[in-house]
Amino acid sequence: MHWAKILGVGIGAAALLGLGIILGHFAIPKATDSPAPSTSVSQDLDMAILDSVMEQLDAGRIRENLRELSKEPHVATSPRDEALVQLLLERWKDTTTGLDAAKTFEYKVLLSFPSAEQPNTVEVVGPNGTAFHSFRPFEKNLTGEQVGPNVLQPYAAYAPPGTPQGLLVYANQGSEEDYKALEAQGINLNGTIALTRYGGVGRGAKAINAAKHGVAGVLVYTDPGDINDGKSLPNETFPNSWGLPPSGVERGSYKTYFGDPLTPYLPAHPSSFRLDLHNIPGFSPIPAQPIGFEDAKALLCNLDGPSAPGGWQGALGCDYKMGPGFKQGGSFPTASEVKVSVHNSLELRTSSNVLGIIRGAVEPDRYVIYGNHRDSWVHGAVDPSSGTAVLLEISRVLGTLLKKGTWRPRRSIIFASWGAEEFGLIGSTEYTEEFLSKLQERTTAYINVDISVFANATLRAQGTPPVQSVIFAATKEISAPGPSGLSIYDNWLRHTNRSSPVYGLVPSLGTLGAGSDYAAFIHFLGISSMDLAYTYDRSKTSARIYPTYHTAFDTFHYVEKFLDPGFTSHQAVARTAGNVLLRLSDSLFLPLNVSDYTETLHSFLQAAQGDLSTLLGQHNISLGPLVNAVKMFELAAAALGQRILTLQKSSSPDPLQVRMVNDQLMLLERAFLNPRAFPEERYYSHVLWAPKTGPVATFPGLANAYAKAQNSSGSEAWAEVQRQLSIVVTALEGAAATLEPVADL
Amino acid sequence: MHWAKILGVGIGAAALLGLGIILGHFAIPKATDSPAPSTSVSQDLDMAILDSVMEQLDAGRIRENLRELSKEPHVATSPRDEALVQLLLERWKDTTTGLDAAKTFEYKVLLSFPSAEQPNTVEVVGPNGTAFHSFRPFEKNLTGEQVGPNVLQPYAAYAPPGTPQGLLVYANQGSEEDYKALEAQGINLNGTIALTRYGGVGRGAKAINAAKHGVAGVLVYTDPGDINDGKSLPNETFPNSWGLPPSGVERGSYKTYFGDPLTPYLPAHPSSFRLDLHNIPGFSPIPAQPIGFEDAKALLCNLDGPSAPGGWQGALGCDYKMGPGFKQGGSFPTASEVKVSVHNSLELRTSSNVLGIIRGAVEPDRYVIYGNHRDSWVHGAVDPSSGTAVLLEISRVLGTLLKKGTWRPRRSIIFASWGAEEFGLIGSTEYTEEFLSKLQERTTAYINVDISVFANATLRAQGTPPVQSVIFAATKEISAPGPSGLSIYDNWLRHTNRSSPVYGLVPSLGTLGAGSDYAAFIHFLGISSMDLAYTYDRSKTSARIYPTYHTAFDTFHYVEKFLDPGFTSHQAVARTAGNVLLRLSDSLFLPLNVSDYTETLHSFLQAAQGDLSTLLGQHNISLGPLVNAVKMFELAAAALGQRILTLQKSSSPDPLQVRMVNDQLMLLERAFLNPRAFPEERYYSHVLWAPKTGPVATFPGLANAYAKAQNSSGSEAWAEVQRQLSIVVTALEGAAATLEPVADL
Repeated sequence: MHWAKILGVGIGAAALLGLGIILGHFAIPKATDSPAPSTSVSQDLDMAILDSVMEQLDAGRIRENLRELSKEPHVATSPRDEALVQLLLERWKDTTTGLDAAKTFEYKVLLSFPSAEQPNTVEVVGPNGTAFHSFRPFEKNLTGEQVGPNVLQPYAAYAPPGTPQGLLVYANQGSEEDYKALEAQGINLNGTIALTRYGGVGRGAKAINAAKHGVAGVLVYTDPGDINDGKSLPNETFPNSWGLPPSGVERGSYKTYFGDPLTPYLPAHPSSFRLDLHNIPGFSPIPAQPIGFEDAKALLCNLDGPSAPGGWQGALGCDYKMGPGFKQGGSFPTASEVKVSVHNSLELRTSSNVLGIIRGAVEPDRYVIYGNHRDSWVHGAVDPSSGTAVLLEISRVLGTLLKKGTWRPRRSIIFASWGAEEFGLIGSTEYTEEFLSKLQERTTAYINVDISVFANATLRAQGTPPVQSVIFAATKEISAPGPSGLSIYDNWLRHTNRSSPVYGLVPSLGTLGAGSDYAAFIHFLGISSMDLAYTYDRSKTSARIYPTYHTAFDTFHYVEKFLDPGFTSHQAVARTAGNVLLRLSDSLFLPLNVSDYTETLHSFLQAAQGDLSTLLGQHNISLGPLVNAVKMFELAAAALGQRILTLQKSSSPDPLQVRMVNDQLMLLERAFLNPRAFPEERYYSHVLWAPKTGPVATFPGLANAYAKAQNSSGSEAWAEVQRQLSIVVTALEGAAATLEPVADL
Repeated sequence: MHWAKILGVGIGAAALLGLGIILGHFAIPKATDSPAPSTSVSQDLDMAILDSVMEQLDAGRIRENLRELSKEPHVATSPRDEALVQLLLERWKDTTTGLDAAKTFEYKVLLSFPSAEQPNTVEVVGPNGTAFHSFRPFEKNLTGEQVGPNVLQPYAAYAPPGTPQGLLVYANQGSEEDYKALEAQGINLNGTIALTRYGGVGRGAKAINAAKHGVAGVLVYTDPGDINDGKSLPNETFPNSWGLPPSGVERGSYKTYFGDPLTPYLPAHPSSFRLDLHNIPGFSPIPAQPIGFEDAKALLCNLDGPSAPGGWQGALGCDYKMGPGFKQGGSFPTASEVKVSVHNSLELRTSSNVLGIIRGAVEPDRYVIYGNHRDSWVHGAVDPSSGTAVLLEISRVLGTLLKKGTWRPRRSIIFASWGAEEFGLIGSTEYTEEFLSKLQERTTAYINVDISVFANATLRAQGTPPVQSVIFAATKEISAPGPSGLSIYDNWLRHTNRSSPVYGLVPSLGTLGAGSDYAAFIHFLGISSMDLAYTYDRSKTSARIYPTYHTAFDTFHYVEKFLDPGFTSHQAVARTAGNVLLRLSDSLFLPLNVSDYTETLHSFLQAAQGDLSTLLGQHNISLGPLVNAVKMFELAAAALGQRILTLQKSSSPDPLQVRMVNDQLMLLERAFLNPRAFPEERYYSHVLWAPKTGPVATFPGLANAYAKAQNSSGSEAWAEVQRQLSIVVTALEGAAATLEPVADL
């Protein structure tokens, strides 16, 4: 007998069954270790529970969490980082507010630290060989928190030690094009020191690109034009405003790949195979050091040589020259060189992830994972503690409901506090490597809240298309902070929107790069992922990121005074993430709208048709199969949506039928993975979201192969375009097949 | 409420519910288009149905199927192959004996054919440059079936065209060691023609190895010592016995990789990317041609040079010399050369798979796939029609039950008739490439029955360890053919057994190489697979395979007269495969015993500990992590087995809990896949079953890396050993994690 049919058979049987249910409900003793306020196979999202969770998420508690989390610097694997591991375990094991279980997962990973004894320095060395000007190796102690044994001096993690010395050049953002532009000016880069500014390309790329042109060392600074809307004076910056102080320096990881550098594709267990420490792919071959704009100004405003192009100019108050070397009549003798002394060392350290679980009542083998990293560069009040403060508040509210016995989710909820993210998403990546099969088979979605509040203007959400609908549903229910009276959704719509062919004007969902711990989940495992935060009003600032990012000025005081005084934006993010989490864990039907991929596919296709088709046609490559594949996907996704609607309308759908369509929804993203598509791009297997090097907003494999072929005369490059086209067609057709009725051939 | 608890709550509620069930059962009208003799979520294997199926599988109908299937030659894509596509569609669409649906899947694939106008030839060319002896280009017409427009002459598919001529050498089986042995004798192989015999290494390897040593062309023959237990006279061979006639020639595919050669990892759709036709990896660079032992004898018994080693000698009745060239006083002038003229051509042809489905009543999204190829080299009565005859009989019996409305399986059953297997498992591989995600997510097991009867002595089963238990269960129930009165299991146990540490003496399950269409399913998709057949009494023959394999003598008459006169072995295979199929499709709990992997892991581990540990230790590589990983797997698998037993004992287990453990069983094999483990081995991703080139019966990646490192002085080779060790440890630990309780962290 079909269970659903038993329920639907008529009033008599329904009454008898109802009696059975009542008897069963009251006759079963509540086991103390067995969860189960509701374990009906048709258990669905309970709006009263959801409302109650929204109500209980408390700004004051988030504030207290943040104060505790950001009290001391807690760089990865430091004593304070380990103390926070214990704090998380205590919270998640608490008998009245904790989860079902919590434990740590440790990995032995390769980190990079500056030397406490021998700080990195930047000096101007006169023609006589003596250093006569040395720049500040630390940030200025403006609030009493910028010095101390646990404050790491600014450095470029993974940049190799060395003491290069040479004439200074200014290389803009350090892109390949920037170095070429210098050479086009007749500037010989060999043996020079390149001063670059943050932005444009990744940190590591600035040095790796430089090395290809013979540059001996790289300096990186943050231009006030990029971070402070041009402001640069002490009284215009922190602690007088949210601006970056002149001595503030962005730390960061300077390498190409994420994950532990020595154990690609393998969890970094002590016994795991490790690459040769002296030949690690993706590391800069030359030393690099970040500096504040105060120091950068002293160098840059004294440079000789031709004026840099308009796009290279910044807000340091002088005309930026390209070099090489210093101008006559400036602060330094013209023949002076710059000497960069880097004393970083690589160290194998044990980094911990902390994971906690609330076991699902009905489908414990379906996971919703919610995570953030724990490690910071210094105090990390914003990055990452603003996210962890929210995470702890959500887990407290849900844990309390759980321990009271009033609620247990349909699916399992896993909370994660990742280690060593700042060094390159290491903790989360190692975890996905260790539990790849289990996570791929069972994870419905990954929610990331790293920095929860960049600024207090509007929600910013990034994710793959299937998560759009659940974020929209959640944000329509929650009030935006402030006096507007708008929902988070409507406020978001005012700030960032797009015109959807399907829905009309909607808030704009961003795409996922590799900026935080979602990277391995989406790119390596193919799990639908999202990243949530509150962010800027772009009409009020053009700051590249919040100004004290990765500096010793990212403190509790900074958050409380400038970013989110009432912690209402933190609360808004907690409610949004908590609401999305509950919808994913508790809804009978997974709230992932796979049809929303169709818009993406159409836009990628249109870009290809618009920008690529002429040249493709000249090489006898037709986009016809791609057109068909997109259509196949569209039809299959729409038809599945209809079948789900029909199933939802039935009074009590068969639990196995519900599971089947949910599996189709959950696993769709996996069908876009092809581990053989981009073998040179470590971890990137998702044929829709791999990095795009080409300029056209189309399928990444196609875009990149096309960009290469354009600059190549050989037929091999065009064969690769055709191969990448076939890879994406196969992925789309394969994905469509997973959405079709399950017993279709 | 937990549905299982409702049922378990007490007599009163149970009675009420029971009444509800009864009411429900009889009150629901039977929908005509909706299948459903039984669609209870707890629908389990029905032994009465199983017995009835066993009873109905009919030897006479298998015989009639075979007669029809083998009536004409039906090489892949030939008109008769296409006619058989229609025959399959008709059978599977039959309204009284057919399936729910059937359709074809077509691929445009690269095949290789000899020229009808210009047959391949082998000649002895005298010193004066004229060919004075030419060998038979066709097999002798012994039964009237060996000539005709549809009988392809013997050839080496994919061997390139060309007319090499040179001194003849004898190169045994054409392995790398064999060619080295010739050179060690001072024989210059450059420009020679190498005569080799079948066996030892793959067909293509004989020519590829040869080319590395400068050989210009390769001949391959079947030695009567290897195929006929030494018999070679016409009156000792077919049509007078099952032996290979002197003119019989084994055709076959001569290349390295399986699947369509031009579209690796992509389905061979017309628009798919294709490799450059002039530079296909895995093809022999030199011409090759197979010949009969009659012709081989004329060449080999006239060779000059040193005597070949004992292991190279065969049953042609002379002392095999190594060459080069012919001896004085033999049939040919001493300076004669051999000229091989090959006129094969590559052709893109459309090959069809035929698939049919019986939709599952309860879990239609779980597939049991049962397949065999359809294409033959000539009539292919044994290979593959003996398998297809069985396939059609099983689908008829199940189709009849289905159409009568008396049965529908719990899970979906998919029957497959693959195309172009003889050219390298092409149809099945393209299908797995097209539907990779869908198949990986949903397929519980793949059953292959290619040649169903090699001989009539005993069952032979190959598979991964989880399928052992279901094959044992099935074969214990079925009588072996013949007068023994034994079950198939007991008869099998007498012929091929091993001592299991867990079970004691059991029949020996073989491992899966890449000999038939299961290859892509197990190696590429990680789906538990098996291959079933009846085979030889090894005390009676040492034949490498049944003697007329891939010749024009593999006819219906051959089967009926020599292989299985009463078709009772065919029936035994039909019953075994049908029984296994029904158990997999209908059992509430999947009959896959994942704990049986533990024995394999222990034996691999012991081999490593015994044979590798000394040298590993010298290179600071510890097997400790591997020992731990095997233990983790063992404990997790055993504990899952216990949980399943407990669940089975409950009167009506929760359907979602059953689904959860079944998913753990189904997906285990997937956890052993690592697409990055062996990038040079196309499709091979299963870290336990990839090809082993090293001599030690341990984990293949470890064995192969160790074998390489042994012969290498560099530390890189030992680093690769460590890397392969970490890959297998990670896979085992990852697999263990999938077997642990689903809500464990």
